[in-house]
Amino acid sequence: MLRDTNIEFRFRVYVKEEPYLGIGRIELLENIQKFGSIAKGAGAMNMSYRKAWQLVEDMNRLADRPLVEKRLGGSNGGGACVTEEGLEVIRKYQELEKEVRQFIDHKAQEIRF
Amino acid sequence: MLRDTNIEFRFRVYVKEEPYLGIGRIELLENIQKFGSIAKGAGAMNMSYRKAWQLVEDMNRLADRPLVEKRLGGSNGGGACVTEEGLEVIRKYQELEKEVRQFIDHKAQEIRF
Repeated sequence: MLRDTNIEFRFRVYVKEEPYLGIGRIELLENIQKFGSIAKGAGAMNMSYRKAWQLVEDMNRLADRPLVEKRLGGSNGGGACVTEEGLEVIRKYQELEKEVRQFIDHKAQEIRF
Repeated sequence: MLRDTNIEFRFRVYVKEEPYLGIGRIELLENIQKFGSIAKGAGAMNMSYRKAWQLVEDMNRLADRPLVEKRLGGSNGGGACVTEEGLEVIRKYQELEKEVRQFIDHKAQEIRF
């Protein structure tokens, strides 16, 4: 039996039962890193600035150390950068994603839905 | 560093890019098995009969062999039962879920978000 099947998965990290990291938040961190700004990072993924700001606040609060450093003020709402801790979190998330992907692909060959 | 973190995950099986199995569909199959009826199985999870019927149609179409056998007619829309194939699919899904759960729990100890 060879069927055209594939398995998609998602995972979320919670801290004290609160959502901390998911695919959308990781993408937001990557975009902030890329554009050096929460507003531009959010805009690149069609997320409102308000929403992005709230997510950054939540992540910073739940992290051991802030993931994003905000620079307030300026005509476009100030810049922002992802901290070392933030870059490490992105890396860990992507590492886990890759490993789970490999695990599921391997298992799927045995299980065959 | 010991923080109160946990990781939740979900996966979906697709056949030819079409959704085939997910946590909701597996729960529906379990409920149909439990109540012997699509209507009652759907009701137990606050799903409309119409929606449940459509999901069963989709799964049966995408599976190698039907997962649910419907008996039409009767005052309450007829009974239904989960086939051997359907029970096997439930078992496989739960097995993969358990194995991915163990894998993620193990990895999370190394990664430490």
